Amino acid sequence: MVEMTSIPGGKSTNGMLLAAMQAEEVRELEEYVTAISASVEEEMDRILPQTEETDESRLFEAMRYSVFAGGKRLRPVLVMATNDLLRGKRPRALRVATAMEMLHTYSLIHDDLPCMDDDDLRRGKPTNHKMFDEATAVLAGDALLTQTFEVLSDRATHTDSAVRCELVSLFARAAGPLGMVGGQMMDIIAENRPIESMDQGALARLQRKKTGALFSACCEAAMVLNGASREEHHRLTSYARNIGLAFQMVDDVLDEVGTEADMGKAVGKDADLGKATFASLLGVEGARKQAEFLCSQAIQFIQPFGKDARILELLARFVVARGH
Amino acid sequence: MVEMTSIPGGKSTNGMLLAAMQAEEVRELEEYVTAISASVEEEMDRILPQTEETDESRLFEAMRYSVFAGGKRLRPVLVMATNDLLRGKRPRALRVATAMEMLHTYSLIHDDLPCMDDDDLRRGKPTNHKMFDEATAVLAGDALLTQTFEVLSDRATHTDSAVRCELVSLFARAAGPLGMVGGQMMDIIAENRPIESMDQGALARLQRKKTGALFSACCEAAMVLNGASREEHHRLTSYARNIGLAFQMVDDVLDEVGTEADMGKAVGKDADLGKATFASLLGVEGARKQAEFLCSQAIQFIQPFGKDARILELLARFVVARGH
Repeated sequence: MVEMTSIPGGKSTNGMLLAAMQAEEVRELEEYVTAISASVEEEMDRILPQTEETDESRLFEAMRYSVFAGGKRLRPVLVMATNDLLRGKRPRALRVATAMEMLHTYSLIHDDLPCMDDDDLRRGKPTNHKMFDEATAVLAGDALLTQTFEVLSDRATHTDSAVRCELVSLFARAAGPLGMVGGQMMDIIAENRPIESMDQGALARLQRKKTGALFSACCEAAMVLNGASREEHHRLTSYARNIGLAFQMVDDVLDEVGTEADMGKAVGKDADLGKATFASLLGVEGARKQAEFLCSQAIQFIQPFGKDARILELLARFVVARGH
Repeated sequence: MVEMTSIPGGKSTNGMLLAAMQAEEVRELEEYVTAISASVEEEMDRILPQTEETDESRLFEAMRYSVFAGGKRLRPVLVMATNDLLRGKRPRALRVATAMEMLHTYSLIHDDLPCMDDDDLRRGKPTNHKMFDEATAVLAGDALLTQTFEVLSDRATHTDSAVRCELVSLFARAAGPLGMVGGQMMDIIAENRPIESMDQGALARLQRKKTGALFSACCEAAMVLNGASREEHHRLTSYARNIGLAFQMVDDVLDEVGTEADMGKAVGKDADLGKATFASLLGVEGARKQAEFLCSQAIQFIQPFGKDARILELLARFVVARGH
């Protein structure tokens, strides 16, 4: 079971008690996440090259190492829950969810590199370049990114090639220079600037690219697979944008108040670097409140879907309530 | 004009005089290459994000820096010459040729990184990480790789989405873990092994992935765009495989006998590292002869296309005759 502990010392900070998930609700979400995680991992095992005794096996091993290092699998869950809401077929959504997790994993491997965030620990385990070496980590990231597009373009993902092309385009735009990679660049530049030059607006723009673009692409991918009305599109992308930003705010809070053991990675680094985060700009309580507000907004956007939006609602609440 | 000098001290070493290109032939190929290079560069300028005064502009600048740093544009020429042979429409082949050059440029940027080949000079200019920094270079490579797939999946590349999907799949397989990136991994592993453990067969397998996969994909992409009979497919992929391997052999020869000024990059590195190359395994003359043999084979494969294969034939001869 994927374990979902709540935020350390986490009483809710506003009247909506968003952060206080009932044990039963946590269990319901856990069951969903556990099932999706298992399916995604099976699919990845089928898709990724086998580590036989060839000269490239080190590369395949490194790809598998990071992909199977655990993680919350939030993005695949977002794809699948949106797909369920739209009553889409599960097997093809599962391939898209898997491709999304491969793409996300590539970005983590490269982000952890010494020349980037220089992290030794990820999900409680040595980062890819610590376990292997830098060259292998660069290549493992490259290979995962490249194979993401192979998966999407494969007939097994959808019989209609127009749909497959739209997925390729969606993923490439979300992850490319105007999306995630652009956000990563902005982040690096921001680190080397006086902290005063960053305000909440600038940080939100940065994070909307760096983490928000993939979150939105998860919901959009499910809509590409199943079609969606303009109204549905508006509601679901607004939902995704809100929880994406809230997710980052809680991340910043946890980087200040969490422990390395809880988080499975080094904490307090941003503060040590004097880097602007939502926690430094708004304070821990301020950032948490803002995250709760964004998630309550997200939930309002999906209210009209009623019971069909159950998992998306729990997910939005988990984003605020999570302790790691 | 793209300048095509012939191999230093380059008398032909076998009876076929492959290496001895007539001045007129050189001029004919030069004109073709110059025209294609100009078109590809215009297309890249249209496609790549503009470096306006935004926080990501450093990323866009780094992408543009390497893409516009010159280079022989061999891969785009291979796409276009195969497309011409098949009497395909030029504009859409040009987008595919451009995507191929973006993909190739990403691989050069990452290959030059300190953790990989650690090169300071490429095409006579500072490598990307020297001009910018390592983090920017990693991201610029990632962005170019990602945008390659955006270009291919765009309607402007071909109106038939099935064709676009096939292109995405072809590029991803050629560049992915079982293709180029796998070859790069093999290369790194080979460096750390006793040179005696490498024989010509092992080196050819490595290079068929590391450089051969993209060469083949160039010809295959033109066939995906235009359709090709099984016979044409066999002939053109055999041609590509042969010149790909020959290209690498000549590269190894030039690394031994060329000068830094001619090559626009550091030379003699492989020998200094005690790394197995075709030149070290076969000797400079042996590797050159082998390259000539492969190119004569390549030319035989395309003989039946007659005059339509003119540029491909000149290109095969240039691969052996080139001095940089």
